[in-house]
This record gives sequence, C-alpha cells and structure tokens, in this order.
Amino acid sequence: MNPLFAHLPTSVFEEMSLLARETGAINLGQGFPDGDGPEDIRRAAADHLLTGSNQYPPMMGLPALREAVAAHYGAHQGLALAAGNVLVTSGATEALAASILAIVRPGDEVILFAPVYDSYAPIVRQAGGVPRFVRLAPPGWRITREAVAATITPATRLIIVNNPMNPTGRMLDAGETALLADIAVAHDLTVICDEVWEHVLFDGRAHIPLIGLPGMADRTIKIGSAGKIFSMTGWKVGWVVAPPALVAQVARVHQFLTFTTPPALQAAVAYGLGKDMAYFEGMRAGYQRSRDRLAAALTDAGYAVLPSDASYFLCVDLAASGIVEADRAFALRIVREHGVAAIPISAFYESDPVTNVVRLCFAKADATLDEAARRLAAAL
Amino acid sequence: MNPLFAHLPTSVFEEMSLLARETGAINLGQGFPDGDGPEDIRRAAADHLLTGSNQYPPMMGLPALREAVAAHYGAHQGLALAAGNVLVTSGATEALAASILAIVRPGDEVILFAPVYDSYAPIVRQAGGVPRFVRLAPPGWRITREAVAATITPATRLIIVNNPMNPTGRMLDAGETALLADIAVAHDLTVICDEVWEHVLFDGRAHIPLIGLPGMADRTIKIGSAGKIFSMTGWKVGWVVAPPALVAQVARVHQFLTFTTPPALQAAVAYGLGKDMAYFEGMRAGYQRSRDRLAAALTDAGYAVLPSDASYFLCVDLAASGIVEADRAFALRIVREHGVAAIPISAFYESDPVTNVVRLCFAKADATLDEAARRLAAAL
Ligand SMILES: CSCCC(=O)C(=O)O
Ligand SMILES: CSCCC(=O)C(=O)O
Repeated sequence: MNPLFAHLPTSVFEEMSLLARETGAINLGQGFPDGDGPEDIRRAAADHLLTGSNQYPPMMGLPALREAVAAHYGAHQGLALAAGNVLVTSGATEALAASILAIVRPGDEVILFAPVYDSYAPIVRQAGGVPRFVRLAPPGWRITREAVAATITPATRLIIVNNPMNPTGRMLDAGETALLADIAVAHDLTVICDEVWEHVLFDGRAHIPLIGLPGMADRTIKIGSAGKIFSMTGWKVGWVVAPPALVAQVARVHQFLTFTTPPALQAAVAYGLGKDMAYFEGMRAGYQRSRDRLAAALTDAGYAVLPSDASYFLCVDLAASGIVEADRAFALRIVREHGVAAIPISAFYESDPVTNVVRLCFAKADATLDEAARRLAAAL
Repeated sequence: MNPLFAHLPTSVFEEMSLLARETGAINLGQGFPDGDGPEDIRRAAADHLLTGSNQYPPMMGLPALREAVAAHYGAHQGLALAAGNVLVTSGATEALAASILAIVRPGDEVILFAPVYDSYAPIVRQAGGVPRFVRLAPPGWRITREAVAATITPATRLIIVNNPMNPTGRMLDAGETALLADIAVAHDLTVICDEVWEHVLFDGRAHIPLIGLPGMADRTIKIGSAGKIFSMTGWKVGWVVAPPALVAQVARVHQFLTFTTPPALQAAVAYGLGKDMAYFEGMRAGYQRSRDRLAAALTDAGYAVLPSDASYFLCVDLAASGIVEADRAFALRIVREHGVAAIPISAFYESDPVTNVVRLCFAKADATLDEAARRLAAAL
C-alpha cells in the first residue's frame, strides 16, 4: 500500500457524520445545509437530464459554464476573466487535487495554514512536496508577516490558503490578503486560493479574491464550488480559475483524475450563476440569521462563542466556556451522550494542535438549531 | 510544474473531438453513443434532484447503490459480493486513479498492456511506480504467458488490465484470464481489472470477471462504470469492487480526490442496475447491429476490418486496406478532408507503436454510420 495514504484516518467529517448516523444525533459536524437548494436550479438540471445531452461534455467543461463562471466573477468580484480562464472540475476537492498535482514537484515546499482543510497536505505529499505549516490560534486566527516569513526557504514554491477559512469561519482582512500577495510576488510563489466560501459572508463583508490583487493575476489559482454557492453540497461541480497557461497545466492532471463532470449539473450551474444579486443577498441573510440564532442560544447557555465572518460554521472556545476536556473528548461525549455531532479543531493540525475549540455547522432549520443548543446546554 | 504531467499532451480523445467540432466532422473518435440513455433512469435522477437530497452522500457512496452494485454482479456474473465490497467514485477514471494511488509505492513495477488506455501510465508514474509494457499487436492482440513473464521482476507489484479491451474491442478469452490469474497468484501481485465494457459484449460472449477466478478474490480490484453500462458517458458514476480491506485503502485516496459523487445520479444508477436481463440483451443487440452495419459498409468499401468482440469500437487495419499512411496521418487526413474523426492506435503505445490501425466508434445512428462509411470510402 502507498504509505502516504495507508496510514491516514478517514476524514473527521466522515467519522463524525457516521457517528451521528449511528447515534441518531443532530449533525452539526460535516458542513452541509439541511435545505434543498434553489428549486429553479434543480429543475434546470432535471430538464437537461431529460432533454439535453448525457454524453461526455468537453474535458475543460461546458463552454456555457466556463463563460458563466467568468461572467459571474466579473459581476460579483470585479474580475476581468474569460472562458479560457476556467476549468470545470468534479467539485472543489478535485480542483484542489488537480491543481496541487499540476504545480508541485518533488522537494518543493508548500506553505499551509493550520487549522488546515484535511485534503491539502496528503495531496501535497503525494506530489512529493513538503508541507510547512503556519500555525494560527484563537481567538483571532490572524496571519502575520513574521509567521509566514519564518516558513519561507529557497525551496518554497506554493502557498495554499483557504479564504474565507474553514474550519474557523474567519475571512482574511485586507491587511492579510495584501501581505500574502506581497510575499507571493517577492518570492515568486504560486498561490492556490480555495475560495469556496466566497459567497457565504456576513455583516456586509465583501470578499477579496487574491487573484485580483496587484501582481497576482499570473500566479494565482482560484478555486470555487457550486455546491457551496448554491447550498447543494452533493452536486460536486467546482472549478479552477487561473491564467490560461496554468489552466492548461491543471487540465493535464484533471483529464486523468475524473476527465469531466456531469453535463446536466454543469448546465444548471451555468444558469444559476446568472441569478440576480437579490438571490445571493437572501442566501447570506438567511445563514446570518442562523448563525446569530445558534450563537445567541449557545451564549445564553454559557458557551464562549468565537466570531464567525463567513461559511456555515461558528466555533466555540471550550476553555473559555469552563470546559476542561480536550476538543476531541468533548466532541465524542456530546455525540454519544447529548445527541449533537461537532468537529474538533485539533483534527486540522499535524502538530501543536489547538485543543480547546470545536466547530458547529449552523446551516440548519431553526428548530434543529434550538434543539441542538438545548442539548448542548446540558453538556456544560 | 510537475514534469510528470506538464509534458503530457491532451488526451487523444479530446484532441480528436475538438478537431471534429472545429471541422464539423462525424465524430467516430471519442467513445460515446449518440443515443440519450434509458429514459426511466434519467427520470429517476430528475425525480431525485427535485424531491431527494442534494447534500453530501456518504463518502463511500449511497448504501442503496453499493448494495445494487453487489447484487447486480451477483445476478449477472455470479459473484458473491456485499455492499462492503463497493466504493462509489466519480466515474471509472477516478476509480482507476484512486486505486493506483492507493496501491503503488515508489519503485513498484506495474505491468500494463499496450495499446493502453491513456490514463493508466501517468497515474502510475505520479505514484512513483514504473510501468512495464507488454506489447500486443494486431490482428489477434493476444496476451501470451511468455510476454507477461518477460516483464516480471522482483519489483513487480501490480497488473492493470482492461477487459474487454479498449481501444482494440477484444475480450480476453478463458485462456488469457486464467493465465493472468495464474501469474498474479504465483507472484503475489495485485490486479486492477478495468471492466467498464463488461456489458457491451457481442455474439453471445459472456464476460469473465478476474475477481471471480480462483485465488483472485483477495487481490483484485474490479472497476465498473454506469456511464458505459447505461450509454450515458457523461454521468461519471463509477465504482471499485474489491475485498473490504482494499476498498478501505482506495477510499483513503478517494476522499481527497473527489470525496463523493452526486446523490441523484447515484440513486438513479442504483435503480438502473436492477433492470431485467431483457434490457441488457437489447442494449447488446443494438450495438451489435451497429457494429455489423459499419463493418459491412467498410468491408464493401475495401477496408480490412478487424474483429470486434465488445465495446463501442471496431478497428481497421490500414496496411491490409492498401493504405500506406501511418494511422495518425490518416486520422488527421480523414477528419480534415473527409469529415470523419477516428482514433489512431499508435497514441496508446509509448514505444514501438502499432501504426497501421485506427479505431472507429459505431455507437451511432444508422444514418450516421452510413454517411461515415460513404465518406471513408472516398478516403481509400
Ligand atoms: C467534504 S466533507 C467536508 C465538508 C466541509 O467542507 C466541512 O464540513 O468543512
Ligand atoms: C474519457 S474520453 C475517452 C472515452 C473512451 O473511453 C474512449 O473513447 O475510449
């Protein structure tokens, strides 16, 4: 067996979802909404299944979707893109894997930020790369110039950053995005920016795409996800946005990882990306209300809730809530004894983990959030 | 850039499909049918999109699909399998990539048969493995014990075989499957058997799954594809069938390549796999009629058509047809000057290529096949 994968555990998301299914717990672990997603987009996909082509679309993606992604980022983020900047993938996970395998050569060092999304480091290692972690810590989870500079060596080739950040729910501010761009340009690094949460922003925040910053257009791979944008996490339609030469390199890998993505879903996402601003505002407002509802109920119960700028997630500081258990022990206890699944943040560190924080998904119906908070109150 | 991918060309399928689109040629290159696929299965997927979950299914696949795959192979191939033997993937391409990355360690040698499907060797090399090719040649494309034995060394770890074989359209006979099993057992090798064409068989042939042969159940990874079984190549629902311990290892990679596959398509495939034998007989009979129609028209025109046991493909021997051009030159000439795209077989060899054979896809409407044959007659 390939030792790079043979010794990995199953992802913590899957582990906790399995425990939730086994125990019948409310699943605030793995990040998925309990809504159905926009009916018109689902109907567009259903229509395509019945009346459109179900054969191989082009390996790079349906032209209509590649154009729609480019136009969408023009309208929402002021980026000047064309279809040639876009490669469609089978979800953001595949976009990440294909991008990492396209860029990283054996011996290349790759800067990652911990807590780190769990697919990044294994694929970096499969490519022969060496992860170098910048450790972030609560309550601020801030990226500093000193911390990044300390990980840079002559072998550094790539930065992979998730913005907004999962699992912390933090969005990088203008200072942090500028410093990452600065460092990338100064050291001639490529940057993969996993921006799947770019639309799920709260309190009026505006997303700052790294690819739009000075000096970054030629060195940035931006990754997006229809599943996250449209609250249908099972759709597995993602994309890579990059300069055409980088897109071509990522496509070399993509053609042998999945080759292509179901055309009915691609066509429906192309349609969905053209929805008006009101749709996106409404989606954000809905999740913001849910965030506030869960945060208020947990605060009332005595939990110390950390700020959440974006994503489906908020974090709870266990130590500040008076809980002495480590995050994993707490997560196992609440799923088994109190019927609520959560994600322990320590799972996202390879060393020196933060062990006093758990992540909860608030993309659920009010009644589910209220019942989860009631159960969690009993766990204090 | 990762040199293992940076210097690869775009797949020959994509290259020829692009040329076909640019020139308006009839596309008998890339293997996809021009039919729509079974309406009831498409409707089942559409219904699920509208009324079922569009959120993450379990990483291993929907339980209903895992059970349906196991039951399907029980009914059709006499295999004794359970859901625990099945991992659902985003198409057979991902199943292959995840399986190869799970098994191969740096320095492992992997036996491949040329002409070889184009995704195998790049992923073997990404895993650090060393491909060792057994060269097959027309008209018989037979695997011999001597040829396989000559490639075996103490470093040999894995055999990857495609049966029925693409691009040749040949099905291995009982002698060849037995000798592969023999060699695998004698040398304690794992075998990945890419059986995506297992249902598209002609002239009453019965598929022999390698995993069912003595000594093979514990060492074989069988790969299947709903896109091929149901003539909807864009669906990208595939699977790995293997002993549970091997399934678990492949899942370790799968979780970081795509994580999961759209639940609506999984649910519809689970339904489709239960279709009665008459459906599968009818599908086979339809493609057999198409094969015979194209073969007869090409033979009438003066082409030397090689036998096709299985798949959507037949091959033409250019030399025996009196054509002196090499396959690639011929393929470029016929797409540009005669409006028919084909696949040159030399693209599937890394060295010492067979250069006198092109592959044609006959999974098309009668009128399309007739017109293609008429155009090809003019190219002689
Ligand atoms: C791919 S399962 C994990 C989903 C997710 O993004 C999360 O829960 O953080
Ligand atoms: C993945 S595109 C190639 C499709 C196919 O199996 C073929 O044409 O051989």
